Amino acid sequence: MFENSKKVESSSNPSEYDEPNPSEAGSANAPLTRPPGVHRVCLPPRQTSVQKLRRRLLEIFFPDDPLHRFKDQTWFRRLVTGLQCSFPILKWAPHYSFKLLKCDVVSGVTIASLAIPQGISYAKLANLPPIIGLYSSFVPPLIYSLLGSSHHLAVGPVSIASLVMGTMLSEAVSYTEEHALYLKLAFTSTFFAGLFQASLGFLRLGFIIDFLSKATLVGFMAGAAIIVSLQQLKGLLGIVHFTSKMQIIPVLSSVFNHRNEWSWQTIVIGVSFLVLLLTTRHISSRRPRLFWISAAAPLTSVILSTILVVCLKSKLHDIQTIGQLPKGLNPPSAHMLLFTGGHLALTIKTGFTTGVLSLTEGIAVGRTFAALKNYQVNGNKEMVAIGLMNIAGSCSSCYVTTGSFSRSAVNYNAGAQSGVSNIIMAGAVLITLLFLMPLFHYTPNLILAAIIITAAVGLIDYEAAYKLWKVDKLDFVACLCSFFGVLFISVALGLAIAVGISVFKILLNVTRPNTVWLGNIPGTQIYQNRNRYTQAVRVPSFLILGIEAPIYFANSTYLQERILRWIREEEQWLASNDICELRCVILDMTAVTAIDTSGLDMISELRKMLDKRSLKLVLANPVGSVMEKLHKSNVLELFHFEGLYLTVGEAVSDISSSWKDQA
Amino acid sequence: MFENSKKVESSSNPSEYDEPNPSEAGSANAPLTRPPGVHRVCLPPRQTSVQKLRRRLLEIFFPDDPLHRFKDQTWFRRLVTGLQCSFPILKWAPHYSFKLLKCDVVSGVTIASLAIPQGISYAKLANLPPIIGLYSSFVPPLIYSLLGSSHHLAVGPVSIASLVMGTMLSEAVSYTEEHALYLKLAFTSTFFAGLFQASLGFLRLGFIIDFLSKATLVGFMAGAAIIVSLQQLKGLLGIVHFTSKMQIIPVLSSVFNHRNEWSWQTIVIGVSFLVLLLTTRHISSRRPRLFWISAAAPLTSVILSTILVVCLKSKLHDIQTIGQLPKGLNPPSAHMLLFTGGHLALTIKTGFTTGVLSLTEGIAVGRTFAALKNYQVNGNKEMVAIGLMNIAGSCSSCYVTTGSFSRSAVNYNAGAQSGVSNIIMAGAVLITLLFLMPLFHYTPNLILAAIIITAAVGLIDYEAAYKLWKVDKLDFVACLCSFFGVLFISVALGLAIAVGISVFKILLNVTRPNTVWLGNIPGTQIYQNRNRYTQAVRVPSFLILGIEAPIYFANSTYLQERILRWIREEEQWLASNDICELRCVILDMTAVTAIDTSGLDMISELRKMLDKRSLKLVLANPVGSVMEKLHKSNVLELFHFEGLYLTVGEAVSDISSSWKDQA
Repeated sequence: MFENSKKVESSSNPSEYDEPNPSEAGSANAPLTRPPGVHRVCLPPRQTSVQKLRRRLLEIFFPDDPLHRFKDQTWFRRLVTGLQCSFPILKWAPHYSFKLLKCDVVSGVTIASLAIPQGISYAKLANLPPIIGLYSSFVPPLIYSLLGSSHHLAVGPVSIASLVMGTMLSEAVSYTEEHALYLKLAFTSTFFAGLFQASLGFLRLGFIIDFLSKATLVGFMAGAAIIVSLQQLKGLLGIVHFTSKMQIIPVLSSVFNHRNEWSWQTIVIGVSFLVLLLTTRHISSRRPRLFWISAAAPLTSVILSTILVVCLKSKLHDIQTIGQLPKGLNPPSAHMLLFTGGHLALTIKTGFTTGVLSLTEGIAVGRTFAALKNYQVNGNKEMVAIGLMNIAGSCSSCYVTTGSFSRSAVNYNAGAQSGVSNIIMAGAVLITLLFLMPLFHYTPNLILAAIIITAAVGLIDYEAAYKLWKVDKLDFVACLCSFFGVLFISVALGLAIAVGISVFKILLNVTRPNTVWLGNIPGTQIYQNRNRYTQAVRVPSFLILGIEAPIYFANSTYLQERILRWIREEEQWLASNDICELRCVILDMTAVTAIDTSGLDMISELRKMLDKRSLKLVLANPVGSVMEKLHKSNVLELFHFEGLYLTVGEAVSDISSSWKDQA
Repeated sequence: MFENSKKVESSSNPSEYDEPNPSEAGSANAPLTRPPGVHRVCLPPRQTSVQKLRRRLLEIFFPDDPLHRFKDQTWFRRLVTGLQCSFPILKWAPHYSFKLLKCDVVSGVTIASLAIPQGISYAKLANLPPIIGLYSSFVPPLIYSLLGSSHHLAVGPVSIASLVMGTMLSEAVSYTEEHALYLKLAFTSTFFAGLFQASLGFLRLGFIIDFLSKATLVGFMAGAAIIVSLQQLKGLLGIVHFTSKMQIIPVLSSVFNHRNEWSWQTIVIGVSFLVLLLTTRHISSRRPRLFWISAAAPLTSVILSTILVVCLKSKLHDIQTIGQLPKGLNPPSAHMLLFTGGHLALTIKTGFTTGVLSLTEGIAVGRTFAALKNYQVNGNKEMVAIGLMNIAGSCSSCYVTTGSFSRSAVNYNAGAQSGVSNIIMAGAVLITLLFLMPLFHYTPNLILAAIIITAAVGLIDYEAAYKLWKVDKLDFVACLCSFFGVLFISVALGLAIAVGISVFKILLNVTRPNTVWLGNIPGTQIYQNRNRYTQAVRVPSFLILGIEAPIYFANSTYLQERILRWIREEEQWLASNDICELRCVILDMTAVTAIDTSGLDMISELRKMLDKRSLKLVLANPVGSVMEKLHKSNVLELFHFEGLYLTVGEAVSDISSSWKDQA
């Protein structure tokens, strides 16, 4: 097996640590050449601190090597590639065909029929005039179709971001009393959300949104969906005076304290439409080919309910309707952005929170459908696209928009092929804005409530929650915390708690890492966990431990205690069974991916402690960065040649044979 | 090499995943027995959730298996062991001899000569009457000698905790104007510090103090030492009106704004004694055998300076002295603990901060000297001992105490053998309290300042900082941040920033883990980083990647992108060199010590993506917990038999031979 190890030896990297330093040559009584069959442990290639820092920063900010397309290209090609990267539309437009257009028109019209009622509804969720929802379904999709790289993302207002913006702003400013100020704050928050999103993308800090783990989001979305649905009881029951708070308790008490305002007409019509919408949703989710049923249902319901109200106007006097909506295109709103005054902190906070949430949703949706069609969506570029679209939106009377999951799914199922479907949708919204606004005058609020509830129900992913419970209990706890945090405390705090728990989970794994007791699988050089592989056998006189974590300040004390306990238990077992004593402890460092100064101190202290008990401590297979630090901190001098091996197998055979030589 | 693998196979654990589920038998077209030479990957032994939770909690709270001494013992032995564990004095007292007593008397008297002037000085640092410092050097050492397990810890007030308590309390309450209230708050804070320390020990949450990493502490101590020293300019220059703030800028401006108060007499005498003390310190640190020079210097200086002041009383009228000190033992102070009123939050916060800091110092000092003499100090038990000693202290007019590094070093060098040296020291303090207090009347404040500066200088460990810079740049940054945080912002915030950076470092390593490209070392089954081992060669048609981190929500997106980039680069290289195409990607999962639901999704998505590109994805050596989750989440079904191997070597040889069979 090791026949040509001599050759390997001679071709190996020269590494400094094994050339004994003259000043400490006295202690270098180890052999200068390794016995055959034992490989030298190499240091990683030497790098200066600047090189290392550069590599590290490149890995942090440019893991995808974004410039690889520009390598070995002519200047003209580079320019074209650069433009294509900035405006993905330039990439697919030249290959665009009439056949693709047909698909895009179908899907564009389909999502428009969903986007118009949802736009109006979500704007109400954010306590904004309904028309803002339509404006937001016009400008942002156009901009996204130029800049975005997803072919299936349907852009527009979404429920979660609308809810969060509505909550955060109305806690400080009343939307009924200070209407103009509220509107200004909404646009300013949208601007900050966009600025924040675009900066994350430009600064390539997109990994920050990864900290909203899936478990956190499942809980958060479910909690938010319940709050959103309960809020809609206002419209569905016809209540006039309703709380502006967002926690479950004030909302429910508000519902039951205003029983006198309940209107049976509203309830009957609202619940019927709600049942209709939920049924169509159920049918479509069972049979994806019938997607158009749930896609067409909201607009159909709006038309039906409006006709109903118009026909029975004299009898249905209790029913609240949307009322007059202005005709015409998005008015400019750049002059309404407020960068001074006491509300700046509020708008920045709201912008940040809604920005993160909408970014998370948009990126996740884009990635999901890209994976289904096997193309790649670049996270950082998507962030820039979504961010610029929101900045532009804030100057044209739009509020926060992103890719909506429900509409994107419909878009995908309707056969969308490119961003043109967004352009078609924007066209449909344009026609609505220009000509069809008066038709919404008698649309009842209850139908908007029913549409929102139907969309919100889709956010409750109990199957994902069950899977979390089954696979990872701590992830499930994080999910529950964000769920109850949103329900009972507040949206922002619920999110913060969930992120905290996710981070705590990482820290817990670092603080209390696994140490496993390895045994040899007979007839092989494989050493495996004796607990898991019953065929792995004890190696006499050796205690072989695998450490399954980086060694940091947070766990070095624990690891030292734990290793000493392993040794104590092994010695007790050997003593009670009258077997030859323990002579050597091997630490398998394969999974120790990093070490810090506390860890280095721990290793050298452990070595000294075991030395005093005439136990040999040996390290097997330290990874590059750990090896480098062992070397730099002079811990290697303590170990010198005889304490470092490339594999556990080589350590065992070399040390055993050296004992035989001594005997 | 694999001659008896058949036997291994038959003796292996039955694991569920490889018995194809009837419902999905259609997809189970993999062979039911593995080819010879290929080992099965086992699931860890099945455990219920409760068993797992129990094991996990035991690892978190009882990693040292504290009850192992009680196993297989008679009831009487168990009682004795229990008492010995609670009162370590019972363990060593029976073996105590006259010879040991001689050593302890010498060391006890030596540390008393240091403890008396330091006690008075540190009390002034905490803005407390000097007598409190002496009280605190009497009761706590007695209690520690009963409960503590370190033989060398010299207990009493320490500079950092005194400084922090002084800062935090005097920010809210003036110690000159509301003297009685300030004293009450100090005792109450001490009580909470003790309560907090003892609870950490009882609840076995000692690992919390591990989060103050060495790097953090080096920076913090240096910053605090500089603040402490600058504060002493008040005494050394004879300034009367001095700021109570703790940041470097207000302290320095206070020094220079009160130049008119500088007293040349004070400066001359103060600087002479400071030079004397620093010289003795320097001598002792160079030659540990001359420890008694620096140990005796403070008391000698106090005596000399007092004599000087008494003799030249008429001429040295500028020099401030300690003044009248009450004679007698510690008065009880339990009635002074304030658990009501507006200052409760302040005392809890102060107690927590000083408690953590003094605990960190005490445990670190105890462990250091225990390691030198090769005995073990149990962290949780030490916490209980230090905590109870502070609770008792708060009821007997003492403030926060712990094991001091400087006095413990003197204790160790003077040959202390057990806690009796603390009792001897307390005896010396008792004699001082009862009979010698009037002698301190004319002791000048300047000598206290000189003593504090000398002790503080010892806290600046520039060698450790240089080592941090050399070994770990990010640890050095954490050190710098805590240093400047303490100097310019505040003690508590400086600490918080440093802990934050340490945690951020862990997260950064998790967020951007290393992926390494493995090659085969010819003639062996060893696969190593090709960057580090130049002899490791490319395996044709394979791309073997080692992932060096657990896969979490925080890095799953990054890892997916990074793996796809490795594949892209490899394919480009192969294409440009006209070498046979890539057919299989092997992920070496040895260092993937944990996985969460996002990571599982990433793996299955990656598998699907590569499937579409007819690339095979194979996992090698998943650890127990990862294997279990792969199984539970049904990701294994995607891989089935052909995608899981125990080692990279087996994967390569098995897949290569299956290709040969097909060809």
